[in-house]
Amino acid sequence: MSEPIKVGIVGGSGYAGGELMRLLLGHPKAEIAWVTSRGDKDLEAVHRNLMGTGLRFVREEDAGPCDVAFLCMPSRESMTRAPAYLEAGTKVVDIGSDFRLKDQGLFERVYGGSHACWGLVGESPYGVTELHREAIAGARLVANPGCFAYTTILTLAPLVKAGLVDLDRIVVNGLTGTSGAGAEPKVSSSHSEIANSAFPYNVVDHRHTYEIEQELSGVAVGKVQVHFTPIFCPFPRGILSVCSGFSTRSVSRDEVLATYREFYAGEPFIDVVGLPKDPAVSWEYLPYPSVAHLAGSNYVQLGVDVDPDRGRIVAIGAMDNLGKGAASSAIQNMNCMLGYSEELGIAGRGLHP
Amino acid sequence: MSEPIKVGIVGGSGYAGGELMRLLLGHPKAEIAWVTSRGDKDLEAVHRNLMGTGLRFVREEDAGPCDVAFLCMPSRESMTRAPAYLEAGTKVVDIGSDFRLKDQGLFERVYGGSHACWGLVGESPYGVTELHREAIAGARLVANPGCFAYTTILTLAPLVKAGLVDLDRIVVNGLTGTSGAGAEPKVSSSHSEIANSAFPYNVVDHRHTYEIEQELSGVAVGKVQVHFTPIFCPFPRGILSVCSGFSTRSVSRDEVLATYREFYAGEPFIDVVGLPKDPAVSWEYLPYPSVAHLAGSNYVQLGVDVDPDRGRIVAIGAMDNLGKGAASSAIQNMNCMLGYSEELGIAGRGLHP
Amino acid sequence: MSEPIKVGIVGGSGYAGGELMRLLLGHPKAEIAWVTSRGDKDLEAVHRNLMGTGLRFVREEDAGPCDVAFLCMPSRESMTRAPAYLEAGTKVVDIGSDFRLKDQGLFERVYGGSHACWGLVGESPYGVTELHREAIAGARLVANPGCFAYTTILTLAPLVKAGLVDLDRIVVNGLTGTSGAGAEPKVSSSHSEIANSAFPYNVVDHRHTYEIEQELSGVAVGKVQVHFTPIFCPFPRGILSVCSGFSTRSVSRDEVLATYREFYAGEPFIDVVGLPKDPAVSWEYLPYPSVAHLAGSNYVQLGVDVDPDRGRIVAIGAMDNLGKGAASSAIQNMNCMLGYSEELGIAGRGLHP
Amino acid sequence: MSEPIKVGIVGGSGYAGGELMRLLLGHPKAEIAWVTSRGDKDLEAVHRNLMGTGLRFVREEDAGPCDVAFLCMPSRESMTRAPAYLEAGTKVVDIGSDFRLKDQGLFERVYGGSHACWGLVGESPYGVTELHREAIAGARLVANPGCFAYTTILTLAPLVKAGLVDLDRIVVNGLTGTSGAGAEPKVSSSHSEIANSAFPYNVVDHRHTYEIEQELSGVAVGKVQVHFTPIFCPFPRGILSVCSGFSTRSVSRDEVLATYREFYAGEPFIDVVGLPKDPAVSWEYLPYPSVAHLAGSNYVQLGVDVDPDRGRIVAIGAMDNLGKGAASSAIQNMNCMLGYSEELGIAGRGLHP
Repeated sequence: MSEPIKVGIVGGSGYAGGELMRLLLGHPKAEIAWVTSRGDKDLEAVHRNLMGTGLRFVREEDAGPCDVAFLCMPSRESMTRAPAYLEAGTKVVDIGSDFRLKDQGLFERVYGGSHACWGLVGESPYGVTELHREAIAGARLVANPGCFAYTTILTLAPLVKAGLVDLDRIVVNGLTGTSGAGAEPKVSSSHSEIANSAFPYNVVDHRHTYEIEQELSGVAVGKVQVHFTPIFCPFPRGILSVCSGFSTRSVSRDEVLATYREFYAGEPFIDVVGLPKDPAVSWEYLPYPSVAHLAGSNYVQLGVDVDPDRGRIVAIGAMDNLGKGAASSAIQNMNCMLGYSEELGIAGRGLHP
Repeated sequence: MSEPIKVGIVGGSGYAGGELMRLLLGHPKAEIAWVTSRGDKDLEAVHRNLMGTGLRFVREEDAGPCDVAFLCMPSRESMTRAPAYLEAGTKVVDIGSDFRLKDQGLFERVYGGSHACWGLVGESPYGVTELHREAIAGARLVANPGCFAYTTILTLAPLVKAGLVDLDRIVVNGLTGTSGAGAEPKVSSSHSEIANSAFPYNVVDHRHTYEIEQELSGVAVGKVQVHFTPIFCPFPRGILSVCSGFSTRSVSRDEVLATYREFYAGEPFIDVVGLPKDPAVSWEYLPYPSVAHLAGSNYVQLGVDVDPDRGRIVAIGAMDNLGKGAASSAIQNMNCMLGYSEELGIAGRGLHP
Repeated sequence: MSEPIKVGIVGGSGYAGGELMRLLLGHPKAEIAWVTSRGDKDLEAVHRNLMGTGLRFVREEDAGPCDVAFLCMPSRESMTRAPAYLEAGTKVVDIGSDFRLKDQGLFERVYGGSHACWGLVGESPYGVTELHREAIAGARLVANPGCFAYTTILTLAPLVKAGLVDLDRIVVNGLTGTSGAGAEPKVSSSHSEIANSAFPYNVVDHRHTYEIEQELSGVAVGKVQVHFTPIFCPFPRGILSVCSGFSTRSVSRDEVLATYREFYAGEPFIDVVGLPKDPAVSWEYLPYPSVAHLAGSNYVQLGVDVDPDRGRIVAIGAMDNLGKGAASSAIQNMNCMLGYSEELGIAGRGLHP
Repeated sequence: MSEPIKVGIVGGSGYAGGELMRLLLGHPKAEIAWVTSRGDKDLEAVHRNLMGTGLRFVREEDAGPCDVAFLCMPSRESMTRAPAYLEAGTKVVDIGSDFRLKDQGLFERVYGGSHACWGLVGESPYGVTELHREAIAGARLVANPGCFAYTTILTLAPLVKAGLVDLDRIVVNGLTGTSGAGAEPKVSSSHSEIANSAFPYNVVDHRHTYEIEQELSGVAVGKVQVHFTPIFCPFPRGILSVCSGFSTRSVSRDEVLATYREFYAGEPFIDVVGLPKDPAVSWEYLPYPSVAHLAGSNYVQLGVDVDPDRGRIVAIGAMDNLGKGAASSAIQNMNCMLGYSEELGIAGRGLHP
């Protein structure tokens, strides 16, 4: 039996870093070499679920070498770290946003300034494993997708590839759980404020829009324009992406479901929800994805419906924003980069309830 | 000082009936004459907030005469009751759905069968007070709107009237709180199931769609088609309607806000949220409506934004599904029918937090 | 008709201040003269439920005279303000903690230092209206109780007065909603952290313990010692106090209920929950108080049970921590001080759901 | 490598059955042979987290042989099944309540009637692995503890063993999440009803009381009497047991913590939370257990505090009611019965957030 690979986590005090630790503790071929944090908090007090594991934060300057580094950093920070890790022969999965957009002008406009190592952007595949598996397998740097982007790309890819909807008028409403706002306390994500509420934010120009358009345009071979509005909702984990497209031709729900099943055939983490629409039991057997059952997992649920009278196709996707939307997909990409089975360490199912 | 008018509530064991009681207890010119329920439950055990008020359920056959009756009944049931009340000289506000749709063929298709008293439909104004104030003032029967419909109509009316968006491609995602599923326990609205979740339902043909299209087509003087998907969310009360329209011409957020302020000038219950979009404090001062602060009230918050690059206008509306979306708007309509100030008994502000 | 009295609110950016405004807007004999805040936030952005009311924050130095001032300030701050208001002839209700404890040594130990105007403490009744009505009616300064204290005092007063339990071994577990931690964002009250959680805090020496012991010792004519532990719970509003006492003699639930009904006979805001214990329907008709139905109200629900085999009496009380536990009881005390009906402006029932 | 053992689950439509499946899917030495359900629901529609696993419900009469059977059944039903499984050589873990109480008269009184196979009760250890490890290792039938009982026994065992508190006046308040009420929809566990609420139930004679007293009396070598009240709270998963005992002698928090650490030394699933009580950061670093971080896991957090002035020791325990409180502890017991490492398949950490 071979030695486990050594994994480093840069930026471990946030929710994505915590989820990485939780999952890597159970990964059969990886071990956590170190976890960095700039603050002076105690790891077990921040991530109380990890109490008793013995994990501790270190300063990045005290971190030793590792085989794979996960970068969990704010925008415009991972690009200052990635080059050194790559130079040392470490593979890197960036959970931040610095290597996602492949158009330099767009990057500079969206993220406010020039890139510190633009040359690396071209070699780092956008980490939707389902779309870029081969490139990821050969990469030393992967740009893990934004959570809204990942959900929406998976939800719409079969639809735009099949040309079933107008490509420039796709409306996406994305519901996110409160962990999407990060671990830092804020008024709007205080329990008292949000527990009985919901509100839209960044209504017309959320940064993930550009990732979605970039990737779907690649799938569709044609320019895709999405009209995205995120909505902040009172559940801790999860993303629900509700996508409305205007149909280019008459099509039934079953046909669309078949298109999805074919597109994702063999994908280990994607379930197409095809339960029948039976009004009599619709509140017992929901025929569409729901958020809760994916918490803590790398699984995705996709569903569709069709309004033949008004000419609309609705595609719905759900995932855990911290799991498939961040930490577990990063591990899936690591597995892919290392030639392991993609499911290693992340095959656990979500909680119910 | 004149005698208070006597009010009857038909169907008081549900949430709308309970909210009517709560509000009418504080109405200066009305008193609750009776509340009916077909079950054998105790009113104070069902509506524990009313403990100590002395209110009791009676059988409808034991209910005496009253000046105004509120009907809180399932679809296809209020039409079996309204005629007798009207004949007895009682004014009626129907919180159910039997008198909302004004196209007979459409009614029969949407609600599955013929109408018991179609002649009354024509004389009963659709109860969006803001649009039909005069007709309501002269009516003896008012069809109170569905909660999604009320929110969406108010949210979109200024936009479609001003012709700012394409009328046939308006996409609406409506988030509802769990009380929207009624007081009867169901698997999907159990706390364990929904507290960490959200899911869409009736994705392409929700009945409220037809009310929305009917009313907006009236405002727009042109046929409006909305593409509506409701989403079930883990807060007890509230509706958030997020509406995306494709703009017909270039327009700024400020112009659209001005259009809204003008359209609703003088309306006592509508607040246009025009807080500036300042990213630095956006999580402290949300520039859009949010759900929580309207709970228990008759107030509505409306907001807008514009994406000039992609040609989209987003209009957002929020209200309490049981307040303005049912009970308090029914009282507003009663006030209007009786020539009272519309604010009587329903001027209370929502809770924070 | 007489002029409304002018009310000032010192410290209006917190939850208690917001609730005071919400309620005073509907008070028939009072009007809000001014509301102060030290920060530079916009009142309508902080208390979004008050959008459209026209209320604005002012600096305390710009506030004019008023008839009654409510002080909503941190510990050790209202004692620096109260004297000036009293000197100007303004009546004061202190929602803070500076005038509650009547034992100087105890005050200094619990609140860390000497008192700025100890002479006023003696003349300010402890504001449980149900116990000190006459003193409050004649006072110019009232010390409004802490929320845990108010709930627990009302819950236990009949029991200790009747001598039904050992006075030195009463165990109290108090559940509080998240608004109890205040409006300032904190890690532990972030939605992501607390929505699926509950935790005890200040487990053995919470400051409210001393108020409870002071007041119950007065009622019991005998020293009462309570063993109090607060628990932070994921609902925004509410207090549930579960009190266990060891019975001094054999007694039935009905006898204890009768004791409570007699003790609180005629009290407008106290409901003794006496629903029968019927296991068959116990999940439909809870025979004990619950938190939710009191939100936004000044009402209190009390209930009891008896374990004859083990010799324990359990008394349970619930109220809204921001309503009866802070703002609405402060208004009740103001009403009492001014000779108004105590129910003025605060008779509204809680929400359901 | 040996064949995996075959596991059967009798009663798989509830939450405990679902959690067993979720965990057993990842168990390296067990495979799910079959899962029974009496209803006609589809497994993947009931447990949507298991969508795509291929698991299906079967009728019990169609279930084949298995090595270990988990019984997830209502009171008084597993005793009708256990004998046949044992006769067939199958080992049984009963997650129900039929084999927990070892006093026949008490069983008959608490569970209403005689036992179908009392002879088996004596040979089935009470499944707190931490107390009965050796007996469980040699058993063919194990009585898995009730969730409140398990939490409370672990929380109090070191305290009563050390004789630090009066044994007959221990007051326990247990908070349970809503999954504790089961998967069947009920009014009181509807989201609208409980999301903003909390209420006590079975206030003085909850059945788990007897398990707690039985087990703690065994540990203490002296009769222990607990005064237990459960409280229903708005989080889906988790138990928090807050236990107050009157101290028999002066003792410090550190001494009590040391007693706990010694008692549970080497236990793989028990973490004694010994963070310092620092008021300055107490809302960031809670020095006591909290519920959320244990969800989905087999871990337990225990904490203590001491009130020297009033002579009270408080012990606090938290676990996941469906994990350590039901399914994962059942697997721990299975591992123990089969001679496996106890951690097999259940070492995963809880979610944060």
